[in-house]
Amino acid sequence: MTKVAIGIDIGGTSTKLGAVDENGQIHFQCSLSTDKYADFESFTNVIAKTIRHELEQGTQYLELAGIGIGAPHGVRRRGTIEHAANLPWSGVLPLKESLEDLLGIEVIVTNDANAAAMGEKVFGGAKGMDDFVMITLGTGLGSAIISNGMLIEGMDGFAGELGHVTYNHINGRYCRCGRRGCLETYVSATGIKRTIFKLLADHFGPSELRGVSFDDLSTKMISESAHRGDQIALEAFEYTGKILGSKLAETVQHTNPEAIFLLGGLAQAGDYIFKPAKKYLDESLLHVFKDKVQVLPSELLANSAPVVGAASLVWHKHNHELIAQ
Amino acid sequence: MTKVAIGIDIGGTSTKLGAVDENGQIHFQCSLSTDKYADFESFTNVIAKTIRHELEQGTQYLELAGIGIGAPHGVRRRGTIEHAANLPWSGVLPLKESLEDLLGIEVIVTNDANAAAMGEKVFGGAKGMDDFVMITLGTGLGSAIISNGMLIEGMDGFAGELGHVTYNHINGRYCRCGRRGCLETYVSATGIKRTIFKLLADHFGPSELRGVSFDDLSTKMISESAHRGDQIALEAFEYTGKILGSKLAETVQHTNPEAIFLLGGLAQAGDYIFKPAKKYLDESLLHVFKDKVQVLPSELLANSAPVVGAASLVWHKHNHELIAQ
Repeated sequence: MTKVAIGIDIGGTSTKLGAVDENGQIHFQCSLSTDKYADFESFTNVIAKTIRHELEQGTQYLELAGIGIGAPHGVRRRGTIEHAANLPWSGVLPLKESLEDLLGIEVIVTNDANAAAMGEKVFGGAKGMDDFVMITLGTGLGSAIISNGMLIEGMDGFAGELGHVTYNHINGRYCRCGRRGCLETYVSATGIKRTIFKLLADHFGPSELRGVSFDDLSTKMISESAHRGDQIALEAFEYTGKILGSKLAETVQHTNPEAIFLLGGLAQAGDYIFKPAKKYLDESLLHVFKDKVQVLPSELLANSAPVVGAASLVWHKHNHELIAQ
Repeated sequence: MTKVAIGIDIGGTSTKLGAVDENGQIHFQCSLSTDKYADFESFTNVIAKTIRHELEQGTQYLELAGIGIGAPHGVRRRGTIEHAANLPWSGVLPLKESLEDLLGIEVIVTNDANAAAMGEKVFGGAKGMDDFVMITLGTGLGSAIISNGMLIEGMDGFAGELGHVTYNHINGRYCRCGRRGCLETYVSATGIKRTIFKLLADHFGPSELRGVSFDDLSTKMISESAHRGDQIALEAFEYTGKILGSKLAETVQHTNPEAIFLLGGLAQAGDYIFKPAKKYLDESLLHVFKDKVQVLPSELLANSAPVVGAASLVWHKHNHELIAQ
């Protein structure tokens, strides 16, 4: 009999779900289309049905230890998803309550970056660290701050909105939040695409990216171009890393972390992003912090990180209760 | 028999020391010159002697519950003062160890802003708050962040260096830390003096501050001039509050606090500083945070706040242990 926690990662288009044991091993994993469900109730019903079905189907007997969920605007202390613009359902969604009613087991809800941070702490490179920061680089920039071994959630559960700290509020890039110059308009998969297009506009030299549309352009393509020495691609990484590093200095001066982990497509570009980020971070720091904070790639596998992170909410709570006893 | 905690506030020129009971009442208070003691050992000997003397002198029998100390660059987890530029002794000073050896009672050391934050939580306006920020506005800008009811200290104990987040790193004001444009070069008692002198240089209109030297100018004089309608003084407060508010937005987006407390001479200017700070804070915030965070004056009396704050380190620990039992 193996104890597993179900990790659920709710995204705008698809929701991933998997069973993760105490060692981080995944026993099953599946996904469903989030945007297929017009009302929230049918969505939670299908989630519950899928979990029951998968647990019964397995060749191995799996005992359910709990359910952890990472979702945009997920708030742990209320167990809700609140006003998430990229989900099909508006308002405040009682996710914890709904699933607990349906499945009779404890459900922990938080936002996706917090789930990733917990995954890093339980199963990844942040084992044993009490003070670190997780930056998730996807369409936007998500973040989570762990201090004193605990997630910083703040009064309303909205702490860690580093995607919307301001890099340039006067003539900065327009942000989907309605303001200008937010960090994620520069540092994210979308941000680096915007930078490529800015550089293609500013310069007249050749670039293999001149033949690619904004919609077709991906972080992977930019990395590959950089690898082949494309000057526009190389400069875009330098520019992105510089802004990331100089803004992370402010985060370090707030919370003095041991490490900052980067997760997501942009983080997979390796040295192209890590080198300038680390360089400009150290340049921007007050002397007492210089050369002390590590900037590291997440040790979670990118494609399973959200599910493993969500499941780790359950394992972290279990470990914590064991220690407190 | 009354239990008291000794609170000690170590500053560059003077050290204040007082006995504070569980209700925040001060039973005795005295001060000594920090810069009179060339070596750290004589300083701690005098501190110990003073405490013993005061306890024996009192008409009332006082029982010592512990000693709390706020000091520049004080680090709680190591019980040390580390490389404090404005104290007469260099290097790492084993403050906790020295005083515990001399007095045989537990000593808690932290930095001055952390002590003030604890004072606010135990005796002031932050009672019952688990998430708040304390900004101390003196010669420089100090800060402390409380999240999940605990001080954020970070890996090295240096968290909360908001005085050195960057407002303008390109052509900003020179800072004593060696960098440019740090927040405290604009927002502090010294910062607003620099702003007055910048405005006196930029404008040609009359101001009652044209007759005052930089050395003679004080926050109190600027407040009084503002009160009499002096345009330079009024504009200096608006400018200072604007920079404070817009930078505090980043702090709010990191930690989502319930309130931000301002303590110190500049905070005593009331609406002159609070109104623009609050206005530009709300203007700079992401929508989920808007109009939610309070900006409040510290409820601790300015002249006894450092001593009461330091003593509250002891009472907070006692309360915490009582709850944990």
